[in-house]
Amino acid sequence: MRATVLHKAGDVRFEELPDPKILAPTDAVIRLAATCVCGSDLWPYRGIQAMPGPMPMGHEYCGIVEDVGRDVTSVKPGQFVIGSFFASDNTCPHCHAGYQTSCEHREYVTGAQAPKLRVPLADGTLVATPDVPADDLVPGLLATSDVFGTGWFAADAANVKPGATVAVVGDGAVGLMATLSAKQLGAERIIVMSRHEARQQLAREYGATDIVAERGAEGIARIKELTRGIGADAVLECVGTQESMQQAIGVARPGGYVSYVGVPHGVSLDGQQLFFAHVHLHGGPAPVRRFLPHLVDLVWNRTVDPGKVFDLRLPLAQVAEGYRAMDERRAIKALLQP
Amino acid sequence: MRATVLHKAGDVRFEELPDPKILAPTDAVIRLAATCVCGSDLWPYRGIQAMPGPMPMGHEYCGIVEDVGRDVTSVKPGQFVIGSFFASDNTCPHCHAGYQTSCEHREYVTGAQAPKLRVPLADGTLVATPDVPADDLVPGLLATSDVFGTGWFAADAANVKPGATVAVVGDGAVGLMATLSAKQLGAERIIVMSRHEARQQLAREYGATDIVAERGAEGIARIKELTRGIGADAVLECVGTQESMQQAIGVARPGGYVSYVGVPHGVSLDGQQLFFAHVHLHGGPAPVRRFLPHLVDLVWNRTVDPGKVFDLRLPLAQVAEGYRAMDERRAIKALLQP
Repeated sequence: MRATVLHKAGDVRFEELPDPKILAPTDAVIRLAATCVCGSDLWPYRGIQAMPGPMPMGHEYCGIVEDVGRDVTSVKPGQFVIGSFFASDNTCPHCHAGYQTSCEHREYVTGAQAPKLRVPLADGTLVATPDVPADDLVPGLLATSDVFGTGWFAADAANVKPGATVAVVGDGAVGLMATLSAKQLGAERIIVMSRHEARQQLAREYGATDIVAERGAEGIARIKELTRGIGADAVLECVGTQESMQQAIGVARPGGYVSYVGVPHGVSLDGQQLFFAHVHLHGGPAPVRRFLPHLVDLVWNRTVDPGKVFDLRLPLAQVAEGYRAMDERRAIKALLQP
Repeated sequence: MRATVLHKAGDVRFEELPDPKILAPTDAVIRLAATCVCGSDLWPYRGIQAMPGPMPMGHEYCGIVEDVGRDVTSVKPGQFVIGSFFASDNTCPHCHAGYQTSCEHREYVTGAQAPKLRVPLADGTLVATPDVPADDLVPGLLATSDVFGTGWFAADAANVKPGATVAVVGDGAVGLMATLSAKQLGAERIIVMSRHEARQQLAREYGATDIVAERGAEGIARIKELTRGIGADAVLECVGTQESMQQAIGVARPGGYVSYVGVPHGVSLDGQQLFFAHVHLHGGPAPVRRFLPHLVDLVWNRTVDPGKVFDLRLPLAQVAEGYRAMDERRAIKALLQP
């Protein structure tokens, strides 16, 4: 098959790779209905994250099961399934606690920007839909695989409750999904920090009540002003830089909650600053598997449409253009059709 | 009156100061029944924390109200009261949220290592006991003012629930109070990291089920071993150094809770390490006022005796010896009798 390999920063190739096969009795192989480019793929693409060598890319996936190993009992060929970027057994103590991305047997899933994908620990990892979905549901279902699940975790980890005042730092795909999630969890006020008009508009569709274009100290001052000097109950940090993290901590009320769901790059937190900010801090690789059944339901029942976050659709063979468009911020998120 | 002034590192003097007076209509003046030396007093005493000049010392207090300003309505002369190290109005949004140490009108209370003390915002700050207490209750009531309240916050902020496995980092007075608090909140297993025999014994009295003497990587490995490789549900960090913080994060399970209640000195947290540790982090200056009514009840009804943490009692005039004994770890905590 032909699939996506990042050779070095900026060098995405669509090239011949061996077809994935069942390697362990707990594996499944799926034929992808759709896949996409993740904001986190841009770290190595931009040369900010070191690479050991050429890497098959992609960790967001949904599609039809083609084959399963002999120990797989919960999904079978022909079913439409969705999984997350870490395969998990869903039975270990960390999985039971809802932290499947810290599963004792977790395996990173990669190589999903391809027509087919091997998924380890299929029983613990994959969630099947009630039936094969209508085509227009596929983008939304694909979103649950990572970006919606990660946005949902941002809202959950920041303890968003009905009536809450929420601030979202970042208007990328995850920030937009965090906005949608906060709305679903009952937030009354959702302030999104954004400078891009198209993203502001989608943020409003997803539930944003206020947009703040200022950043840094000015952005903090503006949100304090909007919250009568108190600060936000919940701040959802969806970027992963030192600046975004400082901004997030700065706009939370004392006793408020800050979540962070993007892998931090170059972030260092001063203990004393954090201490006197009095915030709750929680984040990490989103345990999407915890939320997956619920999120799949929300999409299946057409309660929400996270699929709108894909503002660029390309044939899989044009994956390199997907990376370029996202890198140059011409697209929020690129969906790829095998 | 004669009271305690720290002139420079290591130089504690008991010297003449003006008697405290009502300055604002919301003030109270109390005559201290007992006061004490705090672990945090040792930071400037040891020269680790800069001082702007000579400082009246002490922020833990209980005693009889002598005088109140004209706006004070909730306490009156003759009542026995306890307050915390930050005076708070107990009416602002941060107080309502339970974060009185971030009160919009907070004032740091200092000068309590003295016969008399002015307490600002008396209505919001002071909690009266049902009656003047028996002498043997005074140490326990004094403990609620800071050290017990801070230990309780450590347990509360780390989400200690019935059945929880808890680790306590630090066997100082706060660590011991955190142990007592975790026990009260229903922890099933309490692992205390301690190397000092007298403190280990008191920790066991207060509810410790396991003692770990190892530190650093060995300490982390030992606690992982004791928890079947999973880690602790809740870790109560009661020291405030880089080492203790790393240890705390290292022994928490993914999805577990780490609280930190001592002012961090030289602590810096790496964003990526924290991200993959998957922990909840919460701390700050303990909002003792939130817990004070409950803690005073626990002591008044003799459910617990946090007063055992005072293993040295001195006349107030010998305050300098109290500092020395704590600095040299000859005493856990020194109670001072005016």
